[in-house]
Amino acid sequence: MDASQEDPSQMPTAHRVALLARDDRPFHVILAQQFDRELIHTLCRLAERVRVIAETRQGANFLRTLLSHKRAMLYFIQPSTRTFLSFSAACQILGLSNNEVRDSSTSSEVKGESEEDTVRVLSQYFDVIIMRHPGEGFAESIAHKLNHMRRSIPIINGGSGKDQHPTQALLDIYTLHRNFSPAGPGGVIRAFEDNPFAGKTVAFAGDLARGRTVRSLVYLLCRYPGVRLLFVAPDELQIHEDILEHVGQQNIEHELCGSLPDVVADCDAIYMTRLQDEHDLAGESKKINLEDFRLDAAMKDRFKPKLAILHPLPRRKELDVRLDTDPRAKYWEQVRNGMWMRAALLAFVFNVDGAIIDHHHSHYSH
Amino acid sequence: MDASQEDPSQMPTAHRVALLARDDRPFHVILAQQFDRELIHTLCRLAERVRVIAETRQGANFLRTLLSHKRAMLYFIQPSTRTFLSFSAACQILGLSNNEVRDSSTSSEVKGESEEDTVRVLSQYFDVIIMRHPGEGFAESIAHKLNHMRRSIPIINGGSGKDQHPTQALLDIYTLHRNFSPAGPGGVIRAFEDNPFAGKTVAFAGDLARGRTVRSLVYLLCRYPGVRLLFVAPDELQIHEDILEHVGQQNIEHELCGSLPDVVADCDAIYMTRLQDEHDLAGESKKINLEDFRLDAAMKDRFKPKLAILHPLPRRKELDVRLDTDPRAKYWEQVRNGMWMRAALLAFVFNVDGAIIDHHHSHYSH
Amino acid sequence: MDASQEDPSQMPTAHRVALLARDDRPFHVILAQQFDRELIHTLCRLAERVRVIAETRQGANFLRTLLSHKRAMLYFIQPSTRTFLSFSAACQILGLSNNEVRDSSTSSEVKGESEEDTVRVLSQYFDVIIMRHPGEGFAESIAHKLNHMRRSIPIINGGSGKDQHPTQALLDIYTLHRNFSPAGPGGVIRAFEDNPFAGKTVAFAGDLARGRTVRSLVYLLCRYPGVRLLFVAPDELQIHEDILEHVGQQNIEHELCGSLPDVVADCDAIYMTRLQDEHDLAGESKKINLEDFRLDAAMKDRFKPKLAILHPLPRRKELDVRLDTDPRAKYWEQVRNGMWMRAALLAFVFNVDGAIIDHHHSHYSH
Repeated sequence: MDASQEDPSQMPTAHRVALLARDDRPFHVILAQQFDRELIHTLCRLAERVRVIAETRQGANFLRTLLSHKRAMLYFIQPSTRTFLSFSAACQILGLSNNEVRDSSTSSEVKGESEEDTVRVLSQYFDVIIMRHPGEGFAESIAHKLNHMRRSIPIINGGSGKDQHPTQALLDIYTLHRNFSPAGPGGVIRAFEDNPFAGKTVAFAGDLARGRTVRSLVYLLCRYPGVRLLFVAPDELQIHEDILEHVGQQNIEHELCGSLPDVVADCDAIYMTRLQDEHDLAGESKKINLEDFRLDAAMKDRFKPKLAILHPLPRRKELDVRLDTDPRAKYWEQVRNGMWMRAALLAFVFNVDGAIIDHHHSHYSH
Repeated sequence: MDASQEDPSQMPTAHRVALLARDDRPFHVILAQQFDRELIHTLCRLAERVRVIAETRQGANFLRTLLSHKRAMLYFIQPSTRTFLSFSAACQILGLSNNEVRDSSTSSEVKGESEEDTVRVLSQYFDVIIMRHPGEGFAESIAHKLNHMRRSIPIINGGSGKDQHPTQALLDIYTLHRNFSPAGPGGVIRAFEDNPFAGKTVAFAGDLARGRTVRSLVYLLCRYPGVRLLFVAPDELQIHEDILEHVGQQNIEHELCGSLPDVVADCDAIYMTRLQDEHDLAGESKKINLEDFRLDAAMKDRFKPKLAILHPLPRRKELDVRLDTDPRAKYWEQVRNGMWMRAALLAFVFNVDGAIIDHHHSHYSH
Repeated sequence: MDASQEDPSQMPTAHRVALLARDDRPFHVILAQQFDRELIHTLCRLAERVRVIAETRQGANFLRTLLSHKRAMLYFIQPSTRTFLSFSAACQILGLSNNEVRDSSTSSEVKGESEEDTVRVLSQYFDVIIMRHPGEGFAESIAHKLNHMRRSIPIINGGSGKDQHPTQALLDIYTLHRNFSPAGPGGVIRAFEDNPFAGKTVAFAGDLARGRTVRSLVYLLCRYPGVRLLFVAPDELQIHEDILEHVGQQNIEHELCGSLPDVVADCDAIYMTRLQDEHDLAGESKKINLEDFRLDAAMKDRFKPKLAILHPLPRRKELDVRLDTDPRAKYWEQVRNGMWMRAALLAFVFNVDGAIIDHHHSHYSH
């Protein structure tokens, strides 16, 4: 039976990862499980170099030549501003022309076309498709189908249903890495530590049941032995069983908690999330008391001095605006890190990472 | 009386064509009738060269310099994804900055502006307007009006009502030309034949009454003596009298047929189209039996070995997905050909076709 | 108390202007009051140079290198086509990558985010935010807030509520300057006069109560002693008291008039505006008789020979289309001037105006 006809979610993970790779590196980027510690490390270093190079006009103009001969389609069927703009900025950094389809109602689907045909048509015009889609397995199954076409291009998952958001996880872990590695002049990280998470406690707080960013980041953190994970959520919104199972299999220490104030003093990093009530079926989350899952400026004196506060944004009340100016608030930097990480990832997918490393070596190493 | 005030559709065709030309070549691109065999041939060769040059990074970067000093407006008032993206990609290939107006409700028309004023304003910012519009004569009458302004820029018709879609016809005939010309290494056509259609049978099947792509392509095919055209459609959806009249005047052999299976074995090319029921007044096409106008994989054994199957897409059930992997299915290639042909056309309109030919000559001829 | 918390409209103008400046030049562009005569003059000369340089392919390609390392966000929450496209074209002229948010419903605000957070996120990806917003003080208060962030970028006001539209005022005064300065070959202005408005009469006609373009332009014209202003409007739509007060304080001669035909023969420039009935609360403007505030081709013989007719567009019936071909109709040129002026302004904000002057000097002065 043809791989493109199978349900990928029923395959063993190693097989799924293999189907997305070519020449031993990710060709399509669909799952957080595609990234092992070495690859995360490679991408963090690459992102840091892109950031440094982009600081000068000459450097920015060098980066813009790297993919000026390529075109990207941002196929964002689910509403999104920040992920969309982050990818678009990443494309611009590398000189990659980009175009968008953001509303399936303006597309040919109104004329009765299947979405598979739509994507096949796009694959004729573009050199990569960055896709945000409500369907959980859609990006992966399209990737398989494109593998069978004469013109086969990479698919990058920019968020798939409630399932995965691997590029968000990469920017999150890049932000955490930066926080736990010693910074040189200008805040630049000269050397990322191999495992800065050993002995560290990372808490996830809020709506863990329906936040795909948390799911994807947990997969990455499980690559770091010695990390300790806290899942801080009301019972109704706790992290799903499949993630806990994965964490258990990887022998990662973890705990479920019912109150953020109870654990805040233990945390080296806190990853806040908002209530995803757009997934409510009948307003059920209105009844949930979220008071114990807010991060309040009043808790400041219990924060560790090197605590990193992250939030994938947008936020509501779960994250106190009075924390915005605290040096431990990393969520604005996190936004900007996303742009660098996505540029790094695109450079990697198109095999121009070597050119970035060479440029950095000849201009910034001495 | 001022030409800009006359109804162009009442003028003789030769006069219409003349009004759209400058220095003996199309300035505005509005009608399929503007393209004679020599010009079609020129554009096919140019498109093929753009395709070849774009394959290397150096070549792609050369192409991007050609119109980097120009800006295009894609004024797409009728919904469209593929034609829009095809033109946008064509612009990007030539380095032409592009902008869009896709929804008249976001434009100033809500403030009571006439559409003529809107286009005049656009003509101040842009160097070409590519226009898809529900009004049948709109693009042509705007072209005439712009001819009278101090700053006069070309209009490219990207589909006008039920009337014409000349750039689709150009990409269709390019796809047919490629199919009937001998391919060299890498599938590149080194020499297009002058009239590969003599003695060939081209069938159009489906909703021929309301498909502007068919109308425009017939105009082009009539430039090739010896071609035989079959119009395969239910009575209610047969090709209009004006087209049959034109075909007759040009002495092109043609036939009306009521069943695709009856003629499939005779065809050298089959141009499939979908039911355009968005033009229904009261769901009248629901009653039409389309069973005899489907191309089914089961008919494969009656196909000629060099048959070309085309479809302007989107498709519904009239074209069997099981044919997608058959080498005679040319509709994915057709999509990509559109991008090359539109780049060629824009290069031609802006008089940079010579630079492309020179570059090709110095890099690829030996 | 923190400046970012105060209501800017309650501050003295000089203090507001100072808060928007860095190194003695505008950093944010929010208010027409930021522009004195010298600065207007500088920008007009810069715009004229951009126009001249852009005429050749080499020149256009030079301009595109100036800001090719920067990215602009066009945050246009209020519907707009022409201002949006004008800014977008200006960005393209300078090579500035640009992205847009045009509909707050597609943005993350649907997920409950504050608009301040939205703009802060945007400030992480982009190097300038060009903003059109229905909130009158919004752009200014955001500018103040960004001043307090680690990554602080300029805000350009592309129209704020009924209050200000400073870049429209700059293009308007540039159009007036061009009309009153002697043109050299190709219509190029070699030297702008210091005060061409002394002794000239400029009339504003139409809906002066709700037209922010008029408000902003009056601020600029008050920089020119000796100009005479006529406000020609029905009582219900007359210019607001705050503007009249400002005009009085500046000792600028001015008059309120109730009929355009009565004064048309006196005018050196007429600035027409449309009825802004989208601001009606209950269709109240339907009752207003606007017959005396139309500019009709029949009045032509009373026009001064060097009259300049301006209109910010879109127009309705207040400006006779039969005037379009009269050489005194400057409204199409005005549109195109907007693009040059906005490019000049962006170049100025990013401190690359010197490079433009140098290029012009070495290529066009002899």
